[in-house]
Amino acid sequence: MLGVVIPLEDSKNKQASVKPLVDLTKADMERVNQLILSKAGSDVQMIPEVANHLISSGGKRLRPMLTLASASMFGFTGDAHVKLATSVEFMHTATLLHDDVVDESDLRRGKSTARMIWGNQASVLVGDFLLGQAFRMMVDVGSLEALDVLSTAASVIAEGEVLQLSVAKNMETTEDDYLSVIRAKTAALFAAAAEVGPIVAKTDKASRNALKSYGMNLGLAFQLVDDVLDYGGKAADLGKNVGDDFREGKITLPVILSYRRGTADERSFWREAIEGGKSDDQNLEKALGLITRYGGLTDTIARAQHYGTIARDALAPLPESPWKAALLEVIDFCIERLS
Amino acid sequence: MLGVVIPLEDSKNKQASVKPLVDLTKADMERVNQLILSKAGSDVQMIPEVANHLISSGGKRLRPMLTLASASMFGFTGDAHVKLATSVEFMHTATLLHDDVVDESDLRRGKSTARMIWGNQASVLVGDFLLGQAFRMMVDVGSLEALDVLSTAASVIAEGEVLQLSVAKNMETTEDDYLSVIRAKTAALFAAAAEVGPIVAKTDKASRNALKSYGMNLGLAFQLVDDVLDYGGKAADLGKNVGDDFREGKITLPVILSYRRGTADERSFWREAIEGGKSDDQNLEKALGLITRYGGLTDTIARAQHYGTIARDALAPLPESPWKAALLEVIDFCIERLS
Repeated sequence: MLGVVIPLEDSKNKQASVKPLVDLTKADMERVNQLILSKAGSDVQMIPEVANHLISSGGKRLRPMLTLASASMFGFTGDAHVKLATSVEFMHTATLLHDDVVDESDLRRGKSTARMIWGNQASVLVGDFLLGQAFRMMVDVGSLEALDVLSTAASVIAEGEVLQLSVAKNMETTEDDYLSVIRAKTAALFAAAAEVGPIVAKTDKASRNALKSYGMNLGLAFQLVDDVLDYGGKAADLGKNVGDDFREGKITLPVILSYRRGTADERSFWREAIEGGKSDDQNLEKALGLITRYGGLTDTIARAQHYGTIARDALAPLPESPWKAALLEVIDFCIERLS
Repeated sequence: MLGVVIPLEDSKNKQASVKPLVDLTKADMERVNQLILSKAGSDVQMIPEVANHLISSGGKRLRPMLTLASASMFGFTGDAHVKLATSVEFMHTATLLHDDVVDESDLRRGKSTARMIWGNQASVLVGDFLLGQAFRMMVDVGSLEALDVLSTAASVIAEGEVLQLSVAKNMETTEDDYLSVIRAKTAALFAAAAEVGPIVAKTDKASRNALKSYGMNLGLAFQLVDDVLDYGGKAADLGKNVGDDFREGKITLPVILSYRRGTADERSFWREAIEGGKSDDQNLEKALGLITRYGGLTDTIARAQHYGTIARDALAPLPESPWKAALLEVIDFCIERLS
């Protein structure tokens, strides 16, 4: 059984949870789910089939919850935040559909990807449709500021994906290159999701910036931990999909750290494995050994904690409320889901 | 040499041309071209490379010229129409990038497609980036009405592409099914391109509807003639890429008409060719014979002329001007480019 059990200090008495956020946004998330079903509908039967395959596959829907919470915490009660939350989820779903084509993935969340069932064509085009529907909902809300934030995020995400493509399988990728990629492809949407809440709630610029910074840094922490989870996690989960990134030649921070800290021989090994595609189980086992020796996972988690702290401080000036407490707990949840 | 010479009555003294429209929009098109270069720019080098490959490959830029003309004809002189024209061209370019992936095309306008040079991944992602940039420019213009029209077009285009996918290689496709496809995938963007002009020029609702109807019907005529050109054209051009649609099993109106008007044996032939993929040169020659016998091309042109007439009548109530004359001539140009 491959994989690394990650040693985390268990200083906290209670495991952080996403539950307070789920509970607070429950009523509005039901409206989001209704809107998802209605806006993913089409007379062209293949569209709801493909969309629902992915939408119903059990993602956490963290992004739309961020939008709902970041509007509700300022007392907003209309329906603009529900529409924007749905737009954010559609943008995310469109990205996943296109990612599966780009990565030639067979599985996502343990299910066959849409492209394996309906083909690359349907994945590309239904992604485009969902993106179009996302923009229509934003336009319907009528806030040019929210449109600005979300359309900029759409460009930045695509730019980040192309950047990832151009650094792919290049072992000389630095931590900074990698941060540019995840800032664009993951954190930008978290930031936009959290920023449009205060925009529709028409709150002050300082609160808007606070939520944007919270989202951006939460997104970075989230992606770093995701990359750690690919090489290890809770002892109970070990062996489950460990090494997918390794087999695909994806360069993530645990690999970058281990490569840069290693000997010349070890760096040759990494180049053959990642650039040369020698990624069988024996090499994965060796990679896990090197990652453990050089602290690749624990130090990636330390980076995630660093960004988590920035996210926490970003929210500090906001008045205490159950919403703020729930958003803060999500930071810990994103990091602790490893241990 | 394969291909059919299309008999067109030569009642007109003078060949219709796109030149008056090109001349009238020349100064603004230079601003569009500048904006295209600037907004297709990115620090991620692959983005301008892929974008410029397609953008510089010599399309006619009919769509952005429609936007410029349909604003200028009402006396508009700002820069909103330049930004929207650029958005329209980016939406079109993004669609072409994604289409090449969906159709697995090797060539477009006689050049290798972006996916053949940079891969499917880059084509999908750079398309997404251009779509994001298109929306940012629209947001920058700040007209919620124009945003509504163009974001709806984006959804409709994608929906039309999925519809095309689901009727692909099905010989029972009716003319109505086919019209639904081209109305969504081609005509909707022509309609939106022409409608946003009067919107930014803040003209009356009647003029806006006139331009929208003009664009929609021009788009239908344009696509019908495109489908005819795949099986024939000017005698001088015969043999040049004739039968690409046939070889890809694409169902267009010339095929639909010839299939429905044929004998049971001929229908079997079409099913084997289109659904069964038996599309060698011998079968293409047989297909061209059947299309000629059943008037597949001449009657498709008659349909195009029908939509051209509707486009002409849509503009009739507008005051005479060089702009209107240029737009009317484009209708004839789109149809006469065959003969």
